[in-house]
Amino acid sequence: MSDYKRVDANDILAIRNIIRDDTRVLYAENLSDDYGHDELGGTYSMPDVVVRAKTTEEVSKIMKYASFNCIPVTPRGAGTGLVGAAVAMEHGIMLDTTLMNQILELDEENLTITVEPGVLLMDLAAFVEEHDFFYPPDPGEKSATIGGNISTNAGGMRAVKYGVTRDFVRGLEVCLPNGDIVNFGGKVVKNSSGYDLKDLIIGSEGTLAIITKATLKLLPKPKKAISLLIPFPTLKDAISTVPLIIKSKSIPTAIEFMQREVIEDAEEYLGKPFPDKQSDAYLLLKFDGNSTEEIEAAYDTVARLCLDNGAVDILISDTEEREESIWKARGAFLEAIKGSTTYMDEVDMVVPRNRVNEMVEYLHGLQEVVDLRIKSFGHAGDGNLHAYMLKDDLSDEEWEKRLHEAMEAVYAKARDLHGQVSGEHGIGFAKKPYLYESLPEDSMELMVGIKKVFDPKNILNPHKVAQP
Amino acid sequence: MSDYKRVDANDILAIRNIIRDDTRVLYAENLSDDYGHDELGGTYSMPDVVVRAKTTEEVSKIMKYASFNCIPVTPRGAGTGLVGAAVAMEHGIMLDTTLMNQILELDEENLTITVEPGVLLMDLAAFVEEHDFFYPPDPGEKSATIGGNISTNAGGMRAVKYGVTRDFVRGLEVCLPNGDIVNFGGKVVKNSSGYDLKDLIIGSEGTLAIITKATLKLLPKPKKAISLLIPFPTLKDAISTVPLIIKSKSIPTAIEFMQREVIEDAEEYLGKPFPDKQSDAYLLLKFDGNSTEEIEAAYDTVARLCLDNGAVDILISDTEEREESIWKARGAFLEAIKGSTTYMDEVDMVVPRNRVNEMVEYLHGLQEVVDLRIKSFGHAGDGNLHAYMLKDDLSDEEWEKRLHEAMEAVYAKARDLHGQVSGEHGIGFAKKPYLYESLPEDSMELMVGIKKVFDPKNILNPHKVAQP
Repeated sequence: MSDYKRVDANDILAIRNIIRDDTRVLYAENLSDDYGHDELGGTYSMPDVVVRAKTTEEVSKIMKYASFNCIPVTPRGAGTGLVGAAVAMEHGIMLDTTLMNQILELDEENLTITVEPGVLLMDLAAFVEEHDFFYPPDPGEKSATIGGNISTNAGGMRAVKYGVTRDFVRGLEVCLPNGDIVNFGGKVVKNSSGYDLKDLIIGSEGTLAIITKATLKLLPKPKKAISLLIPFPTLKDAISTVPLIIKSKSIPTAIEFMQREVIEDAEEYLGKPFPDKQSDAYLLLKFDGNSTEEIEAAYDTVARLCLDNGAVDILISDTEEREESIWKARGAFLEAIKGSTTYMDEVDMVVPRNRVNEMVEYLHGLQEVVDLRIKSFGHAGDGNLHAYMLKDDLSDEEWEKRLHEAMEAVYAKARDLHGQVSGEHGIGFAKKPYLYESLPEDSMELMVGIKKVFDPKNILNPHKVAQP
Repeated sequence: MSDYKRVDANDILAIRNIIRDDTRVLYAENLSDDYGHDELGGTYSMPDVVVRAKTTEEVSKIMKYASFNCIPVTPRGAGTGLVGAAVAMEHGIMLDTTLMNQILELDEENLTITVEPGVLLMDLAAFVEEHDFFYPPDPGEKSATIGGNISTNAGGMRAVKYGVTRDFVRGLEVCLPNGDIVNFGGKVVKNSSGYDLKDLIIGSEGTLAIITKATLKLLPKPKKAISLLIPFPTLKDAISTVPLIIKSKSIPTAIEFMQREVIEDAEEYLGKPFPDKQSDAYLLLKFDGNSTEEIEAAYDTVARLCLDNGAVDILISDTEEREESIWKARGAFLEAIKGSTTYMDEVDMVVPRNRVNEMVEYLHGLQEVVDLRIKSFGHAGDGNLHAYMLKDDLSDEEWEKRLHEAMEAVYAKARDLHGQVSGEHGIGFAKKPYLYESLPEDSMELMVGIKKVFDPKNILNPHKVAQP
């Protein structure tokens, strides 16, 4: 890709001319190193210039300029990704959308909210709840932007009952690589009007178009929620209960599994004790609904089922304080594990939910085979596991070697279990080799072809997802 | 497209060699005229040969043969479409999937069912209900195949609460135009592994690939359902209550509107009286849930709200008999209207749900302006309206003229209201000009580009959806 134009002084001048606010055009000594990597840092490359856009029109003008001059553009939200999707591999322009952070319209008659892409998930959630609505997708990282969530089709804890980000995106305004602004979908509930371009953008990690506005579906806020923390003698006992819960037809909002060692990391990280210590392995379940009776009926079945399958206890969390202490610990797992080692990398595979135990056992065994600490937690209810490989005090060479061996093994196992490479973190740059290994050639060719249709000059976020 | 090869005696021989069952290769005098059109009949063109495939392998071999010889292939389910999507515009091979009608696996641990594309919607619904599960998509036409439903992203009555077909497709096995078999998605609940090819196939009306297997998401069957039939003084009163119902945060499963004249057609068609006659306009609501109390709480709010907004009465349908008589009438509307005239064409536009009244009023006014009978009914809760233009005793020339004028006007109005051309019936052949008028050039170019990526030889269902 040697024919990209490198950003020079003339380009900077032109960009400043478009943006007309020098505080929003960052380059040279004003360019923080943070823009060179995401949350994990394993993928590193600095952009030449960062543009902090405030309007769709600015995004459009920047793209038109970049397209005309063949300068690569990398869109970026809050930079909380884990696979290098928001890293400027070919330098060029980074388009930071975090200042496009306005909530534009709450439409109560259509149950939609329209937002700019830089709105943070936590701000969106708080805003809709104030208005007695509910935006179900609930990834652990609350400081991600909604644009980032859409770009990775983020999942989160409530996917068991409510689904993922994709299920809540009704319409998108996007800027195509040529700078044109188009709308896919809208406020309509049904749509069968040509190919589904909206869903192609969702999960495309900023490689097909830049999201400049999103219309999201809301639900009425459930009136009550109760969590159950359920200690089991072993993790295997805990996880093998999950398919039975699903089969019982009482669908919880969330089914998470957690182990004592990860809980202890979270306690240390948060400086707060976890409400229970009696076991090595826990299921954490949440139920929501509109009446206490309705929820109790649902969790009663499930609680009895867990006890029948070896659960040591059923801890009902019905106060807000206890609720918060449990879910805060759950939300801190990633940061806590990160804090417990020198460096780490992650696997975000998803398998059918009745194969989770096989994968967890495989990971446990793998630790010894590869001689690498692996910690895992995840969404037992939807088969999405997060496994973290920890560098600790390994030398760089030794780390690379063992990490590679572990990654190859885990993704191969995921394929065996009819799983996919990524449940919710995406492919970005770091996971591309594994995507190529896991999908058939036909699928990869279709993806590369689609990329060319949207971005014939290959200027939008090159080297990501399917692109060699 | 004059360089397609027309099917000749050698091709028939080769096809019979692939299928090895002459009763499943239909041509010449064995070829029924029904294969030349769909439910409405406005688009007509006969295939040269119909292949009634029974296995994925047969589909693959036929596609490889067709691709090599440049023979167009049109996939077809039960032929219940309304826009000519399953009509062989360039003749060639028609691939009838109705014999691929096996239910392959009910997976209670993953809440999925895997089926062949020719399974009928009514058979699927009955099968899962027997096992105490629930497949929510509920289009009026129960004798459509599930492959057809996926190909048009069929919606139906329960979209208000549950969404559309797209929301219940977890994985697809498809045959690409080159004959290769690939899987998109799977049993996994979350997926962020490359571009979303699965959702591109859904709603693509057999132009990108042939669906050979589908894994669908199921829900536990709600234990109770109650319908409310609510007469209003005028249709305007009825429909203007819908956004208030949505705003009240009690989400019914279905919100349909109906008028006396259509109800009378249904009575005549079914030979059975409708349970109420007191009004010209009705809302029909359904609520489901797991306890009578839960449902009552929901419909109580809504019933009071309707009375506050002028409803004449609230008729609660809590016996199976009454329930059936109401919904059977609703299900018969299309056939009943069809039976009330000599010929008809339809519009399936979708608008934001708070704009439905504007559209309905526009349709009423339009009848006089264009001097054409127009009957409508539809899914008030999700903004999807079905309007039928009736030919009655107009001459062919007069009909064509008035129909064209009416169609242009309706679609222009839908655009004004931020609607889309089709909510659930698709574009096929008949609605293509309106899709071109309603979407921006960028979108159409992207769709044409995507078609080329999947089908570079343009042999799969040519001239449909976005393709000129």
